[in-house]
Amino acid sequence: MICVLSGGVGAARLLRAMIDVVEPTSLVAVVNVGDDVVIHGLTVCPDIDTIIYTLAGLSDDARGWGLGDESWRVMEELDALGGESWFRLGDRDLATHLYRSQRLAQGLTKTDVTRELAVRRRIPVTVLPVTDDVVSTEFDTNLGRLTFQEYFVRHRHDLAVRAINVVGLSQARATSQVISALRESDRIVIAPSNPLISIDPLLRVPGVRDAIAHRRGEVVAVSPIVGGAALKGPADRLLHQFGHDVSPVGVADFYGDVVDRWIIDEVDAAYGADLRARGFAVTVTTTVMAEPHHARRLAEAVLA
Amino acid sequence: MICVLSGGVGAARLLRAMIDVVEPTSLVAVVNVGDDVVIHGLTVCPDIDTIIYTLAGLSDDARGWGLGDESWRVMEELDALGGESWFRLGDRDLATHLYRSQRLAQGLTKTDVTRELAVRRRIPVTVLPVTDDVVSTEFDTNLGRLTFQEYFVRHRHDLAVRAINVVGLSQARATSQVISALRESDRIVIAPSNPLISIDPLLRVPGVRDAIAHRRGEVVAVSPIVGGAALKGPADRLLHQFGHDVSPVGVADFYGDVVDRWIIDEVDAAYGADLRARGFAVTVTTTVMAEPHHARRLAEAVLA
Repeated sequence: MICVLSGGVGAARLLRAMIDVVEPTSLVAVVNVGDDVVIHGLTVCPDIDTIIYTLAGLSDDARGWGLGDESWRVMEELDALGGESWFRLGDRDLATHLYRSQRLAQGLTKTDVTRELAVRRRIPVTVLPVTDDVVSTEFDTNLGRLTFQEYFVRHRHDLAVRAINVVGLSQARATSQVISALRESDRIVIAPSNPLISIDPLLRVPGVRDAIAHRRGEVVAVSPIVGGAALKGPADRLLHQFGHDVSPVGVADFYGDVVDRWIIDEVDAAYGADLRARGFAVTVTTTVMAEPHHARRLAEAVLA
Repeated sequence: MICVLSGGVGAARLLRAMIDVVEPTSLVAVVNVGDDVVIHGLTVCPDIDTIIYTLAGLSDDARGWGLGDESWRVMEELDALGGESWFRLGDRDLATHLYRSQRLAQGLTKTDVTRELAVRRRIPVTVLPVTDDVVSTEFDTNLGRLTFQEYFVRHRHDLAVRAINVVGLSQARATSQVISALRESDRIVIAPSNPLISIDPLLRVPGVRDAIAHRRGEVVAVSPIVGGAALKGPADRLLHQFGHDVSPVGVADFYGDVVDRWIIDEVDAAYGADLRARGFAVTVTTTVMAEPHHARRLAEAVLA
């Protein structure tokens, strides 16, 4: 069994590459829920949905989020009504949120509903929300306290962030499935997701770090910073704002000794010596998954 | 000011006819909420929406419910997911429910949201939910206790009903807007809606009967039974099952002295004598609103 600590798009693409080089049923995605949102009465889990859609072959890779063959009639009508429509929910995508909200209202946990959605989308990977409790990553900005999606979508993460808060941690607990998976897996992979706002909120859920400390095998992390920038999203700016180097070394220092081995891009090969000096094993390969054969090679490096 | 006690389609069509013969801003629809439903996390108010859509000229009269120019992508995807999709919500219609659910979550009352929706759909009639409290009309059947929409939509009201329950009345209260409207209106109209499951639950909301007792003007009711049958829905079967005559006289006896004047169809003219003998004034006209000029004549009779 291999556990992949996951945010959204970067993790989804790594998982998609991994299912080509390892038995998919051996993969467990442990997914951040700090960016989940209740909007229009609906519970939306963007990272979980991105992973399921991507592994089901249904994602719109060009748009970068949501489903392919999508339409926008509900949002067009909501616009006409003058409703709050900055958080774009496609018609097909909405079915997922209706399904989830109905099942949660019937008493199922987020873990239960995620399992149902994964089965119904016929994906072979086990997808686990890190917790069934509500934890919310929130941002202190010049505009005050913003929820994750207000910061990320409404303001397109184009705001200086003074503090990142993960609200609800003291009442939260990783699920038993997540704790078992982390303790029993042969390898734990940290996906190239945003370290500060996707992976760190996940690591901070009570139970997660302790389970990782009891790991059987190696913890391998893929650097989300390549050539001094994030491939997607605000990881580079946030690392800089919070005083970290915008480099694999900056991320490695941020994660600390949770990680055993770092996978860095060829353009960052020069950081290998620094990482080794800190006691990490290092693999250098192409980490950008734009080409299928690069994605495959990255997956092989992760699993080596 | 003229108050119209309203269920869904029958009331909507009467109101649509009335706005052609009276200043629309003088009309107040006081609407049943006993069939409101929370489904997929969304609050749906079928009677309110039917009235707003119809008065906005957006209803699909052939289908008999919902919006014209509708599409069903969300429901198709929910079907594909194996979700609960017996309660069909069109894509455009869903925008209304997202809007309402979001505004309710922000702390607005159903009355507030209904006002916003009416303004945004540019309808000149005041639409008031009878109460902002939750009251639910439920049915005891051979399949056990069913909610309104389970009975009405899921089972197409094709079940014997042992009892009709209006749950939540003891904690409910008509809104102050409804009580004022009923007390101050020059006329109260009971629309040709289902007497047992649309109008009676509305009349039973605490505050309504008392306000009607203090009425200034006439209470006029349009018979929903024409030629021994309901034009739409299960009113005829339910009247029969609960021991009432399936005729204007049966409905008149059910409502009792709340009503001053009955409007009955020409095919039922023979019931006029019985109704007059019971002390009611009677107007005979065409009550079926299939033709615009008949609808107009009915509206004129109501307002006469």
